[in-house]
Amino acid sequence: MKQPQGEARYRRRAVKVEEAMRLVLEAAVPGRRELVPLRQAAGRRLAEAITATTDWPPFARSGLDGFAVRSADTASASPSTPATLRVVSSVAAGELASAAVAPGTAVRIMTGGPVPPGADAVVMLEQTADAWDEGLPAVHVKRAAEPGQNIAPRGEEFRCGSVIAEPGTRLRPGHVALLGTFGYADVPVYARPRVAVLATGAELLPVEAALAPGCIRDSNSAMVAALVEQCGGEALVLARVPDEPEATARALAEALALSDLIITTGGVSVGDYDVIASLLRGIEPTAGATESPSLPHTAAATGEAPAFMPAGIAPLQAQQSVSATGEAPAFMPAGTAPLPEPALPQASRLLFNKVAMRPGSPTSAAVIDGKLLLALSGNPGACFVGFELFAKPAIQRLQGAGANESLPKQVTAKLASPFEKGSPHERFVRTRLFSREGMLYADPLAFGKSSMMASIPEADGLIRLKASPEGTPADTIVDIILL
Amino acid sequence: MKQPQGEARYRRRAVKVEEAMRLVLEAAVPGRRELVPLRQAAGRRLAEAITATTDWPPFARSGLDGFAVRSADTASASPSTPATLRVVSSVAAGELASAAVAPGTAVRIMTGGPVPPGADAVVMLEQTADAWDEGLPAVHVKRAAEPGQNIAPRGEEFRCGSVIAEPGTRLRPGHVALLGTFGYADVPVYARPRVAVLATGAELLPVEAALAPGCIRDSNSAMVAALVEQCGGEALVLARVPDEPEATARALAEALALSDLIITTGGVSVGDYDVIASLLRGIEPTAGATESPSLPHTAAATGEAPAFMPAGIAPLQAQQSVSATGEAPAFMPAGTAPLPEPALPQASRLLFNKVAMRPGSPTSAAVIDGKLLLALSGNPGACFVGFELFAKPAIQRLQGAGANESLPKQVTAKLASPFEKGSPHERFVRTRLFSREGMLYADPLAFGKSSMMASIPEADGLIRLKASPEGTPADTIVDIILL
Repeated sequence: MKQPQGEARYRRRAVKVEEAMRLVLEAAVPGRRELVPLRQAAGRRLAEAITATTDWPPFARSGLDGFAVRSADTASASPSTPATLRVVSSVAAGELASAAVAPGTAVRIMTGGPVPPGADAVVMLEQTADAWDEGLPAVHVKRAAEPGQNIAPRGEEFRCGSVIAEPGTRLRPGHVALLGTFGYADVPVYARPRVAVLATGAELLPVEAALAPGCIRDSNSAMVAALVEQCGGEALVLARVPDEPEATARALAEALALSDLIITTGGVSVGDYDVIASLLRGIEPTAGATESPSLPHTAAATGEAPAFMPAGIAPLQAQQSVSATGEAPAFMPAGTAPLPEPALPQASRLLFNKVAMRPGSPTSAAVIDGKLLLALSGNPGACFVGFELFAKPAIQRLQGAGANESLPKQVTAKLASPFEKGSPHERFVRTRLFSREGMLYADPLAFGKSSMMASIPEADGLIRLKASPEGTPADTIVDIILL
Repeated sequence: MKQPQGEARYRRRAVKVEEAMRLVLEAAVPGRRELVPLRQAAGRRLAEAITATTDWPPFARSGLDGFAVRSADTASASPSTPATLRVVSSVAAGELASAAVAPGTAVRIMTGGPVPPGADAVVMLEQTADAWDEGLPAVHVKRAAEPGQNIAPRGEEFRCGSVIAEPGTRLRPGHVALLGTFGYADVPVYARPRVAVLATGAELLPVEAALAPGCIRDSNSAMVAALVEQCGGEALVLARVPDEPEATARALAEALALSDLIITTGGVSVGDYDVIASLLRGIEPTAGATESPSLPHTAAATGEAPAFMPAGIAPLQAQQSVSATGEAPAFMPAGTAPLPEPALPQASRLLFNKVAMRPGSPTSAAVIDGKLLLALSGNPGACFVGFELFAKPAIQRLQGAGANESLPKQVTAKLASPFEKGSPHERFVRTRLFSREGMLYADPLAFGKSSMMASIPEADGLIRLKASPEGTPADTIVDIILL
């Protein structure tokens, strides 16, 4: 796929966000399974359906402390004429009663104790009084008991064999309680996907380095690793790579060997050194380049506005970056050869290299040797949005979540203040959420430009604003992706 | 504090939920601090304020790929009469330009590159065209550039020294990005509180055991451990203890030595074997028992309805469980002596042993040797509610969260269906939340009885229903504690 460098870099077909999500989820196949001890199961996703191994409760249980009685014995009880029942036994939780409840008798019972044979109701301790009946211990019951009162019958919550959670379910503390109840000391779950995190960019310094002129520290790797682990993945942070195709290809090969999913940041745009974009061009699946290698492909030719093109500006890419003589692009710094088309494994296919959204339109995805590569923008804000839209669903799916359940969780809310800026594509705006009288409000956060980080920690959600030449007025009902 | 067993067990003053939360938070003092590598900082809480160590951005950065220009040079540019600027240099991210932008010139610049001296605007690559000027590389700019366009000026987001996060802040992935940006390779955080989890109950089997008659498996320990870790604590699950004061006192001593906070489940009610309740009576701070040891204290005497008492039923406890002759309570199983008053360390004080709420009214709390003990109900549903209301705030506070920030996060929602049951105290009902046209709805979950587990994993929140003799109609605006 040798092709001129400058020509192809703009020839990107933007896919809609939903379509991009679909493509990513199709490529993310649930993977390895393992058994983990119950104590480590919370947050993991089930690899198999879990069933009740017994009726639950396993026996009729008393819901409180009191007396097990035959309700018929109390039918005419009142405070002035209490029923007097001989107390024949006592049963604590963990015990069985030594005697059944025969007519005219009662058994003292504690919370959780098995209701003895013969009894069909439990009377709360506080509604009884000690008594003596012919010198033997007895109890006064001052009100008629309803049959079944304060008894949890066997199987009330679960029948033996019924499914308590389906494969793919993310285990919450409440599931852990159920698993414990039904004796699952070990739990079959999907393994945590190993996610390689690779930052590209010649300007990136390690976090511990002093700043150098023109350079910044790599903050995306640590942020993405934290996001990966938040949604159940295991992050493998690889060293940063400069904008060099050979080094990047080597790092990707290493990532492929180590991981189930690769997330890169940076290098996806249209710059001369956008190495990931360059790599992905090598596996572009559309036939355009090989069918008509000499034709300048422009955004106009495909009927699509380029990502960063305000309305009313004619696309100019065809003339740009490659001269008419096929020379290398002008303005390469001295000593830097143009990027050669780097080699990715044969079994690679591009899923998309542009998404109709702001920020993060150059977000790209491919399948390389059967593994998903998500190439996020290097701009922290765009990187964050790309992660929530594509990486998080992929990581959920790799853990066995259903395709629909893997998608971002959305609610609707009312826009608390206007968002003035229009956008040719769907826009994702960081927001803080609050509720008032049951209505959920979304307040767009300042400092939301894609390069900006300041508002990322404050965001509870992302407002999805539809493409519109104008902004969006306050009080509009908008979709919100919950973070 | 030797006192008759049966007499004191009902003498409990119910505190309101808010008061109980306040007492718990007062007793939870933020603890140990440590430095952790940035990669492990997400989810932890800051022990010190974090400040920007440099202006951010540290230099004027280009927001996209294009040309750095002097905007004045483009003032009269139009598609028909473009400005032609000589391209004198190129600057990638991580580099510095080798030339300043003099009048009539431009510098090719990549996303993130430092804007060279002289330039005050960046023109998007797609809005330019390659050109030649007297045989030298040049660029056509077809539209006037606004001063400052596509440039993030130095310090736009942060000024050096400004606070980016206060102590107690829970670090989210966005904070991790900021910490990386400002060179925090290690981060000062509060240590994860060590939380001992101790289940009481003679009926409890380990999870791996086969069921025995009258017994159930201990599901609370694993559930509570999962909840502890979900909110940042480190759970130490101790072996189950039977309902014996000596064994329980020993286990509590072990827990005190190992942990920053102790959570027990079970044994807090009014039954004959409620060992935790019995232990806490030994440190009851009110003088009632010693002042008038021979007087039967009843709920009526304190003007307060007992926890499980339906309206209209007179309290009967005074006569119950201790005979007029001061004998041991009747109906103890053969071979089991009445519980002696067990000993807790002298430096202990009870915070409360009853809360005006459903479920979980016997939920109790104490401070023992300076450490907080939270005694939750053994009923899984009540245990879960008690954890969310008291244990989670305590664990947040131990990690340095502010007292208000430690409280459960609340929103308002509209009740989607009526809740028929009234309650003499505030009631917490598990609910699923959904939104429609911006309105948040809370749908109470079935299987919500305090003994029931089935709905715990499904719950997104707890509806707080005010005390009311009737139920609560649909469409009522209710407070929701988010889970």
